[in-house]
Amino acid sequence: MDQELDRGRTNAPHGSRIDAYVDRYAARATGMVASEVRALFAVASRPEVVSLAGGMPYVTALPLDMVGELVADLVSKRGAVALQYGGGQGDPDLREQICDVMRLEGIEARPDDVVVTVGSQQALDLITRIFIDPGDVVLAEGPSYVGALGTFSAYQANVVHVAMDDQGLIPESLAQTIHALRAAGSRIKFLYTIPTYQNPAGVTLNEVRRRQVLEICRRAGVLIVEDNPYGLLGFDGEPMRTMRADDADGVVYLGSFSKTLAPGFRVGWALAPHAIREKLVLAMESAVLSHSTFTQLAVGQYLATQPWREQIKTFRELYRERRDALLGSLEVLMPPGCSWTRPNGGFFVWMTLPEGLDSKAILPRAIAERVAFVPGTGFYADGGGARHMRLSYCYPQPDRIREGVRRLAGVIEQELRMRDTFGTGAPTSHKGVDTPGPDLA
Amino acid sequence: MDQELDRGRTNAPHGSRIDAYVDRYAARATGMVASEVRALFAVASRPEVVSLAGGMPYVTALPLDMVGELVADLVSKRGAVALQYGGGQGDPDLREQICDVMRLEGIEARPDDVVVTVGSQQALDLITRIFIDPGDVVLAEGPSYVGALGTFSAYQANVVHVAMDDQGLIPESLAQTIHALRAAGSRIKFLYTIPTYQNPAGVTLNEVRRRQVLEICRRAGVLIVEDNPYGLLGFDGEPMRTMRADDADGVVYLGSFSKTLAPGFRVGWALAPHAIREKLVLAMESAVLSHSTFTQLAVGQYLATQPWREQIKTFRELYRERRDALLGSLEVLMPPGCSWTRPNGGFFVWMTLPEGLDSKAILPRAIAERVAFVPGTGFYADGGGARHMRLSYCYPQPDRIREGVRRLAGVIEQELRMRDTFGTGAPTSHKGVDTPGPDLA
Repeated sequence: MDQELDRGRTNAPHGSRIDAYVDRYAARATGMVASEVRALFAVASRPEVVSLAGGMPYVTALPLDMVGELVADLVSKRGAVALQYGGGQGDPDLREQICDVMRLEGIEARPDDVVVTVGSQQALDLITRIFIDPGDVVLAEGPSYVGALGTFSAYQANVVHVAMDDQGLIPESLAQTIHALRAAGSRIKFLYTIPTYQNPAGVTLNEVRRRQVLEICRRAGVLIVEDNPYGLLGFDGEPMRTMRADDADGVVYLGSFSKTLAPGFRVGWALAPHAIREKLVLAMESAVLSHSTFTQLAVGQYLATQPWREQIKTFRELYRERRDALLGSLEVLMPPGCSWTRPNGGFFVWMTLPEGLDSKAILPRAIAERVAFVPGTGFYADGGGARHMRLSYCYPQPDRIREGVRRLAGVIEQELRMRDTFGTGAPTSHKGVDTPGPDLA
Repeated sequence: MDQELDRGRTNAPHGSRIDAYVDRYAARATGMVASEVRALFAVASRPEVVSLAGGMPYVTALPLDMVGELVADLVSKRGAVALQYGGGQGDPDLREQICDVMRLEGIEARPDDVVVTVGSQQALDLITRIFIDPGDVVLAEGPSYVGALGTFSAYQANVVHVAMDDQGLIPESLAQTIHALRAAGSRIKFLYTIPTYQNPAGVTLNEVRRRQVLEICRRAGVLIVEDNPYGLLGFDGEPMRTMRADDADGVVYLGSFSKTLAPGFRVGWALAPHAIREKLVLAMESAVLSHSTFTQLAVGQYLATQPWREQIKTFRELYRERRDALLGSLEVLMPPGCSWTRPNGGFFVWMTLPEGLDSKAILPRAIAERVAFVPGTGFYADGGGARHMRLSYCYPQPDRIREGVRRLAGVIEQELRMRDTFGTGAPTSHKGVDTPGPDLA
């Protein structure tokens, strides 16, 4: 054999942890490193730990027997279709039904502008795939959804955070950030935003600001990616009007059945201006050929035969009760100096710790006390968030939530005593994405 | 508002086909163009057309009532798990069962080295994502699977074909190609191969060559991506021993339940050396968070409770009968000068036309005569394949296959008369991927 061919890989024994391919990966793969806190979350999934970390919807509230009957019917009567390959854009009937769902939040859309995706996470992946060259800027709220930040990072985007307060993204900050980036020659590709019941902050962009953000982006030629998994899970009055409802050409809208039905089907979607939609379908086919026909038809059958609006109401009431349990016990139990947001919907509360405390340093001690949360640093691409944590109320029962807060308050009080005794330590450094795996996030 | 911000997008009316974002896409998106022959395949899906184009398995042969009962049971008894988010690597029990399936083809593997993916197409996408920088070389048989070529192209890989004959990939050509590429300074990232019942060629890499290819790649430090969706669908004797069975460190193996069970679940997998497997899981989470727990558990339940080996035997017999129908009628009906491969398994026959004929030019006329095939150019990244076509026998009934061949032979005979009258035309130019959408491919 030719001498020149003989560059055989490193001779690591089979099953070795040595990576024989370490010098072969793509540049984008260098950022793919497992988080150091991930192992902690494995411990946090034990039943004795109250997890305020996860974002798992409470699917047990679904009528499981009915859903079971419905999928059986689907396979036995339409199996030749349901078990076959489908088109890359997704099932046409389901896309019509998705338009009905979006109408609840003010959107008038055509099924032809919808692409069904493997959860809205895949929609994020495909949008990033078609828009982002390495170094391109994605604007995002600070803090923002960790799964989106992970995807942006996988495509080597430069995420720039825009400040938010309890009314959501601050329009003036957005305008200034765009101005400064453009002046520095950066290519801004889109603004990624979760305007309603934001993950992780729990805040909602108010109506006046929605119009301002739309106008700023329209004038600056910045596409908006509006991610709206929680919009129908509001606790007061009618659903908010989405940003997409007021701008069909400037917004790519992402929706999901993961929170209004169940994440186990992995059915989400993107609604996009026509030209972008065309590219999304091609990207979809290149990524997975097509989504599962079976789960798409199951969701379609559920929407067609079950009282899905009533079911969403059930979820809303259930989550409101849990939010009340969380906010109520925070109020009673947390030591002075802690503050938190007060969500009107969705799954999450964002808590700010007293100065000198570092949520990531606290996590191992909290888990030892049988309560878990997600440290704030995971929700920033720039190392921010050390004094913050995300508390979720979607999954545990109210009593467990109260018990979790009691444990967490105890840990924070102890930290405050340590701080007062030993002074403020340096915040821990930020490396990797500090979140649980997707089964918890 | 700031003057500098005012770069608003092109003012295309809503629903316009003008792409307001044409100058914003990533470099990789420029290759994402719908094929010009795609519209033809929409016509080809009409019932009066005999489609020898698609790669759809014949799922009607499944015991649909049993599968229906099984999924109902799954939702009503294990709904809280089946409808929830799952881990990024895939269900642990299913990964064990996948190891049992792979054992039929000589593979000894640990469930921890398996990642469950959204069809094996997604495994291809993730492998490409972690290995390919723009311009990196992927070696592939010529012809090769169109879905793989599409994915490689989406990551801006440089696909270099290696010659094959009726015994599969030619080892000497592989060695020479690697030598020449290395001499030219190219970075070769992996060899993509479908050694068994290849798509589209229908040929199988013989045992001696398997060892040679493994040795060439091992010495050259070239990773092998072995794609094996058809391995259990052989028509004679025992399944072939996979390449992965003889090299656990140098091969990433891709498997799928799309052909042995049903594509509608979208359950495939990758088996990879440990370090690569770790990156695959991170890439998986960034792409879709996790696969559908529901479809994974459905496949697991099917494997646990149904006679799946017997079902594969049923599929094998069914496809053998159809292969016989196709080969038999080609023998009787095709004009002299046509030649074709004789597959011992899988779904496809690769046909070579007499000199001067161009399969893509023939396609519209064939569809007018109510028969469809896939032109050969779709299976080459370099414009080759004009004299070839892929004929699939997996979906139509034997009588329909014979009728399809009769129609196709008529079209080719007419083309030959035209050629003899008017001489050889220039082959049509190649642009885009000349295949049907995933519902047909």
